[in-house]
Amino acid sequence: MSTPVQHCYGNDFSHCYGCGKNNPAGLHIETHWNGQEGQAVFTPRPEHIAVPGFVYGGLLASLVDCHGVGTAAASVSVPGQSVPRYVTASLHVDFLRPTPLGPELTLRAWVKEQRGRKVVITVEISALGSVRVRGEVVAVPMPETMGVE
Amino acid sequence: MSTPVQHCYGNDFSHCYGCGKNNPAGLHIETHWNGQEGQAVFTPRPEHIAVPGFVYGGLLASLVDCHGVGTAAASVSVPGQSVPRYVTASLHVDFLRPTPLGPELTLRAWVKEQRGRKVVITVEISALGSVRVRGEVVAVPMPETMGVE
Repeated sequence: MSTPVQHCYGNDFSHCYGCGKNNPAGLHIETHWNGQEGQAVFTPRPEHIAVPGFVYGGLLASLVDCHGVGTAAASVSVPGQSVPRYVTASLHVDFLRPTPLGPELTLRAWVKEQRGRKVVITVEISALGSVRVRGEVVAVPMPETMGVE
Repeated sequence: MSTPVQHCYGNDFSHCYGCGKNNPAGLHIETHWNGQEGQAVFTPRPEHIAVPGFVYGGLLASLVDCHGVGTAAASVSVPGQSVPRYVTASLHVDFLRPTPLGPELTLRAWVKEQRGRKVVITVEISALGSVRVRGEVVAVPMPETMGVE
């Protein structure tokens, strides 16, 4: 298994609640890039409930967000250099059908288009073999003014 | 202060990670409806970080989600009857500018339009007096098939 994209971010930018390896309370979403698409799996915790039996939409939006940004970063990264940190300019999530709580979720993401410095990523989340959520992330390079600790 | 909309959902539908009063691990987002708009405040926890100093986008999307759905439910509720449970069909979030981590966030939400059974809600999240996030939630009545425990 490849090193997750999120483990290639600089240490100062690895605190993210969704995907930072340095956030002990976080979700630890891990994107694996195969050269064409980002892939991930995630099993929501019991508290990530919407109504009984189904996954909370905000958690699904979080998966779309971090997996989309990770895929954007990987898609523009240059082998041998550190992975650039992207952030989310906008996020769209369509809840196509309810997502059952319990089974492992499978995430795929790919570049839909690149517009200048923006990378538009499509994300799909599946459970039990069918797509439940389709999302889109517009990712942009992190502004330098956000890098101040 | 009025009773939060989310405290008026039926007990079976009060487990939501974002806003359920019966979810001890959840965020406990509470929407107050003044007859015209939904209002809420929320202070992210230190772990709700994106990069140092700023709030995680997935958490902001969760606030848009539950505050939007709560506002949708309140907007169609009939005095003296229980508040109907709405769910999210789609969610859109524009991160207009970074949201500082630390200050209390202020949320406003209102009905943008009603299309049949769908209620479209606009949500704004402000910090330190300026709008940081603008979101839109398309909320629909919870399908009966999701009500099975």
